[in-house]
Parts: sequence; structure tokens; C-alpha cells
Amino acid sequence: MTHPSYPIIRLKPNAEARAIRHGFPWVYANELVTDRRTKALASGALAILEDTNRAPMGVVTLNTKSKIIARILDRDPEAKIDAAWFEAKLRRALDHRERLYDTPFYRLVHAEADGLPGIVIDRFGDVAVIQPNAAWAEELFDTLSAALIKVTGVTTVVKNGTGRARSLEGLTEELVVMTGEIDAPIPVPMNGATYMADILGGQKTGLFFDQRPNHAFTQQLSKGAKVLDMFSHVGGFSLAALAGGATSALAVDSSAGALELARQGAVASGFEDKFTTRKGDAFDVLAALAEEGETFDVVVCDPPAFAPSKKSLEAGLRAYERIARLAATLVKPGGYLVVCSCSHAADLQKFRNSSARGIGRAGRRMQLVSTNFAGPDHPLLPHLAESGYLKALTFRLDV
Amino acid sequence: MTHPSYPIIRLKPNAEARAIRHGFPWVYANELVTDRRTKALASGALAILEDTNRAPMGVVTLNTKSKIIARILDRDPEAKIDAAWFEAKLRRALDHRERLYDTPFYRLVHAEADGLPGIVIDRFGDVAVIQPNAAWAEELFDTLSAALIKVTGVTTVVKNGTGRARSLEGLTEELVVMTGEIDAPIPVPMNGATYMADILGGQKTGLFFDQRPNHAFTQQLSKGAKVLDMFSHVGGFSLAALAGGATSALAVDSSAGALELARQGAVASGFEDKFTTRKGDAFDVLAALAEEGETFDVVVCDPPAFAPSKKSLEAGLRAYERIARLAATLVKPGGYLVVCSCSHAADLQKFRNSSARGIGRAGRRMQLVSTNFAGPDHPLLPHLAESGYLKALTFRLDV
Repeated sequence: MTHPSYPIIRLKPNAEARAIRHGFPWVYANELVTDRRTKALASGALAILEDTNRAPMGVVTLNTKSKIIARILDRDPEAKIDAAWFEAKLRRALDHRERLYDTPFYRLVHAEADGLPGIVIDRFGDVAVIQPNAAWAEELFDTLSAALIKVTGVTTVVKNGTGRARSLEGLTEELVVMTGEIDAPIPVPMNGATYMADILGGQKTGLFFDQRPNHAFTQQLSKGAKVLDMFSHVGGFSLAALAGGATSALAVDSSAGALELARQGAVASGFEDKFTTRKGDAFDVLAALAEEGETFDVVVCDPPAFAPSKKSLEAGLRAYERIARLAATLVKPGGYLVVCSCSHAADLQKFRNSSARGIGRAGRRMQLVSTNFAGPDHPLLPHLAESGYLKALTFRLDV
Repeated sequence: MTHPSYPIIRLKPNAEARAIRHGFPWVYANELVTDRRTKALASGALAILEDTNRAPMGVVTLNTKSKIIARILDRDPEAKIDAAWFEAKLRRALDHRERLYDTPFYRLVHAEADGLPGIVIDRFGDVAVIQPNAAWAEELFDTLSAALIKVTGVTTVVKNGTGRARSLEGLTEELVVMTGEIDAPIPVPMNGATYMADILGGQKTGLFFDQRPNHAFTQQLSKGAKVLDMFSHVGGFSLAALAGGATSALAVDSSAGALELARQGAVASGFEDKFTTRKGDAFDVLAALAEEGETFDVVVCDPPAFAPSKKSLEAGLRAYERIARLAATLVKPGGYLVVCSCSHAADLQKFRNSSARGIGRAGRRMQLVSTNFAGPDHPLLPHLAESGYLKALTFRLDV
């Protein structure tokens, strides 16, 4: 028996029913029977998905405006998507993060992999930032928010509707404090440093938790080191390096706002004497530093996605190669170069090859010391594991 | 001008000279002119490699018995492969490890990536174990060993010639203490536990350093957990888990010797009350534990290579799937399953798919929490990065 109150939608014979049964979380628009009745359902509506034999496959959310026309919410076709349902999902997600981290600063919900398709929640102590990147999350925002407050005890909830994904769902941009208030950047303790997260003014949700283990690994390499942190944002790598005993760190970014937050973080961490910033275009600054004859023990490059889509792949890979080449010239003999990519389109092998080619073009030999991805508060569905977009490679030069 | 004392060997026109110039470290047998003079050179001989235009490419070591007929030792054709040369390589390798680890227990040299082709050196405090897996290392063993003692201060040097790679080089098996002496297993501190490494009786070099960061990650998940460590060897995952606050750990292995070392490690770590062992075939024990109704918060499976070669790939992937299926049935709701592969032939995607399929066949949903490789004391050449054979996947079930 299926839930009486949800309408029924049905797969076409060409649909990948087997993959869906084995855990694939999405139905694409061309896989669903979209008769007049289905088309009339509102974006974000809940429905029961049936296979071609009318056997129910679970509760889904529908968005006829999106290429991902349905997202599986529960494999139990009798599930009711209510407060208790959200609370159970959030509690399961919280258990994992509390096991991993001593303080409540982490990505609490990472969308599909945490059983909440299209929903991202970052937690900054008593503040939670919800990114409702799918229509159903917009519809059920209040239920979700109430469940979040109940399960975690947060007092402030921000709705961050500025993600690129929202336009694909036909949703508008907004950034609003829904519950509680925020009047200043939030100090975030990570890896022995304090970062300043500007929830309402910053990029994405003000701070990227995904690089935490990669910051920690660079920190291990940074004792006594002179560090260059390119595309520093709020100082992710440089403050971690200083907390690990780096003698100095230079943070470079094109955003004065990000650098000001990094500076505040350095002050809050007690590193202001060892921390400097430089505003500018990364390619220009790398060339200028080479011109000035500067060298560093550790150079980190964590640029924005150069290859966000397949169309931009070739140009993006050339940009990664160029960055690696310019950065490698600034690394002292035996020093380290950390390069990161958050490009979905550039897979690990392509990104590694481009980076290695760039280092080679700088006339440097290299060993690859580590390959890392996003931290464990960013779980993935194995069926979407190629969406593990963040890669961090650490090279050691002249070995 | 090339070094006068080394004979000259030459690439064939079909050789991948460009790849070699860009850092590829090997010449295959079909890429080299093997005239009578070259054939007459002893295995392990040093030579100058020239391209087809007689331009010198560097100093290489030759082994006409091996498919890898030449390995690049130095890009400088005038380099002299002597004590000072070995010392420089070892010092560079040591710098990196001393930066990473507080105590002198690590893989000191990881072959090609550390500039010493075919040579692996593990360090256990004052004891070093050299695996000379290429003919030149056998020839120059004494020079290497003296340089190692000088650079690191180790007092005992073991030659471990038991690796599979040696037969490909036409070398014989042996395991000898060359300098100093060893009379008991060596206590090795890692991740807050003490492991017992049996240098002369154990598998490989008595202990696997490559899993250290993966032990550490499992440790993070193990507070208050009941842990099952399948294919435990000397207790790598179980002792780390206990050091992280696990309430109990059961180590399973088919080797009574390995389990005895694990038990001694548990005693040395002060965990003997929480640590038990069970000798047996892993598949049998997994089935028996299911029969007994046992469940665990964390289950780890770190089997020997099921797919060491392309020929064994299909059977190997089926074995990984079966292990994951059996192990998943023993994981409590919301618990963790860690699966590892050290199969060269099974790449990350294939291994992940097989593991996910096994977990799915056990009727469990999952999220992939982390993907990890060998630790940073096991660097790779980017050109051989597919040789990053060790993979560790951590799944969380029922999310």
C-alpha cells in the first residue's frame, strides 16, 4: 500500500530502473511519464514513484522545471516526509559529525549522500546556514528549519539561496536570516587556528569546510616554513600553516574583503606578526613574485573552478598547467607545491597530468606526496562518486 | 661530455624519448638497441643512455634480464653514482620524513619516486630494512648501506630480498642481517598504539607503514566503538581503534604468528583487556560471526591483493564484492565499513563499484565518507601514479 496523500508518477520503459533500485538517487526528465497530470504538479511536490509495472519504488520530490525531474527521498513508499522524518535524517547526519569533530563547526548535511537531496547545511556553532538548492527544500523550508533547531540546538538559521544550482531548479536568489540574528563574522576554530566566517557577506557559506584535512596536511609540512597561499580566501591554508609552526605566510587574493577576514583571523589566532596579505590577480602576483626573486618552502594554489563544465575543460586544464608552472618557479629546492581543483569537469587524472606538466615546464622534477579529496563531513553517494569534485595534490620538487 | 667510465647504450627510434625526457623513469626492453656489447653488460651495470641522435639523456642502470631494461638514476649524464650520490638522495628522503613524523618509524625510501629506482627502505628506529628489488641495488648494496648508516645513524641494516619483484630482475631470495643484530620484534609507536614488528619473521618488512593515515582515520571513528579488524596482520587497525577509545576490538587473521604479534602489541599498548583475536579464514569467520548474531560499530577489511594482475582482475573484483557483502551484514545501523585494496590491477573506480555492489547486495544503503591512499612516506612519480595501489574506502551504512 502506498501513501494515500501523494500523487503517483511513473517511470518510462527506457528508464534506468535498475540503477535507481540500486541506489541511484535521481530520475532524469526523459525517464518519466510526463502526462498532463504530472506536468500540473507544483515544483517541489512530493509523489510516489512507480516502475513500469506499477510497483512503488519510493517517495520522491518532483520538479518538472529541472533536468533532474525527480529525486528519491525515501525508498519506503509509505514514508511520510514530515518533521519526524527530517529529524531522523538530521540526527543521523549529526551523529557522524559529532564523532569526527570536537567543536560544532562542519558541513552537517551534504545533500544526496546524507539523504536530503539538494540540501546543504553548514554549521558554525549556534548558527546554521541552509542552502535549499532543490525546489522541495524551498517548499518545506520551515519544517526543515524547525527540525534542525530541535536536533542541533542552533539558535540562528540562515537561508542561503545564492548557489548556481538554484537557477537550474527555477529558484530565485536570496540570502536571509530566518531565525535569530547575526551581526559580525563568526570565529571558527579549525586545525589550531581561528578563521573568520562572514556568513552574510562571504562567498558560498562564508567558509569552506571541505579543505579541512588538506589544510591539516599542509600544516604537517609547514614547521619552520615560509608559506605562500595563493587564492587564499579567508586564509584557509596560511593560518593552518602558521598554527603548524610556519615562520611566515603571505596570503594572496583578488578580494579585499576576503583578505581583511584573513587578517582578522590571523589576529584572532595570534599570528599577526607572521602574516601578510597582497591583493591582486593570481597570475600577475605569481609573475611579480618571481620577478622579485621571492621563493617559498611551501606554495599553495587553491583557485576557483577553472573547468566548471565540459565546455571549459580544455581552457581550464591549460589554466591549471599555467598556475602550476608559475607557482613551481617560486618553490625552494626540496620544497612543496600544493595544487587544488574544485572543477567538476577535470577528473583526478587530467588535473594531475596538467599540474605535473606545468611543474615539468618550470624545469622542476617532482614526486607526488599525497592525493586528497574533501573531508569526511562531505560524504558522497558511491553512485555519484565522480562528483567528488575537490582534489588536492601535494608535490615535492627536485627529488 | 659524458662520464668516461660508464658504457653508452642507445634508444631505438621507436622509444618514448619524450616521455623519458619528461620524467618517465624507465626504458623497456623493446626501446633499447641491444647489440652484442650491450647484451654483454652485467645485470645492474651503470651506463649512459643516449637518444637516437646520440645526445646523452642521463645515467641509467641496465638489466638485460628484465622487461624494464634500464632505469634512470640521474638526469645529469656526468653524475657519478657513488657514496656522495647515495647520501644526497637519502638526505633528501630523510628531510621529508623528519618533517612528517616525530619518531623515526617510516618508509624512508619509496623507490623511483625517491630517486632510487627499485629500492625500498623502511626504518624502525635504529634498524633499517633495505629491499634491493633491482639488480643495481644488489651490486651497490654496500655503498648504499654505508651511506644509509652515515645519513640516518641507524645501527642495524637488514637486507630483505624476499619481494616478488626480485624474480623479475633475476635475483634470488634472501633475508639477512648485514650490519648489527636483531633478537626480538621491534616496538613501533604509531597513532598512539605500539605495534610489534617482526623484521626477520614477518610478512614484507614486518609492518606496513602505508596504512598509517587510514588507521588514523578509522581511529577518529572508533571512540566508544566495538571494532572488527579482518585480515588484521599485526593489528594495524584494531590497535589504532583502541588507542582512539574503542571499547573492544576483535582481530581476525589466518596467521597465528601475526595474531601473536598483535596480542603482544595490545599488551605493550595497555589494551589487553579490550583486545581479542580469532584465527581463521576470513570468509569463514565472517559467516560464523553472522551466524552468531554478532554486530560491530566499525568493521575493517584489509585483505591481501585479490587482483594482483590483470589476469586475476575479474575474480579479484568478485572477491572484493563478496568480502564487502559479508562484512556489511555485521555492521550496526549507522556504523562504518572500511574496505581496503592493495591490488594493482583493480583501479579506484572498479574497487569502489565492487565494494558498493557488495554492500548493496547485503541490503544496506550507504554513503562514501572517505577515499584514501598510502601515506605521504610513500610518494609516487606522477608518471607512475596509477601505481598508487593502496586504496582505503570508508562507507557509512544506512544513511
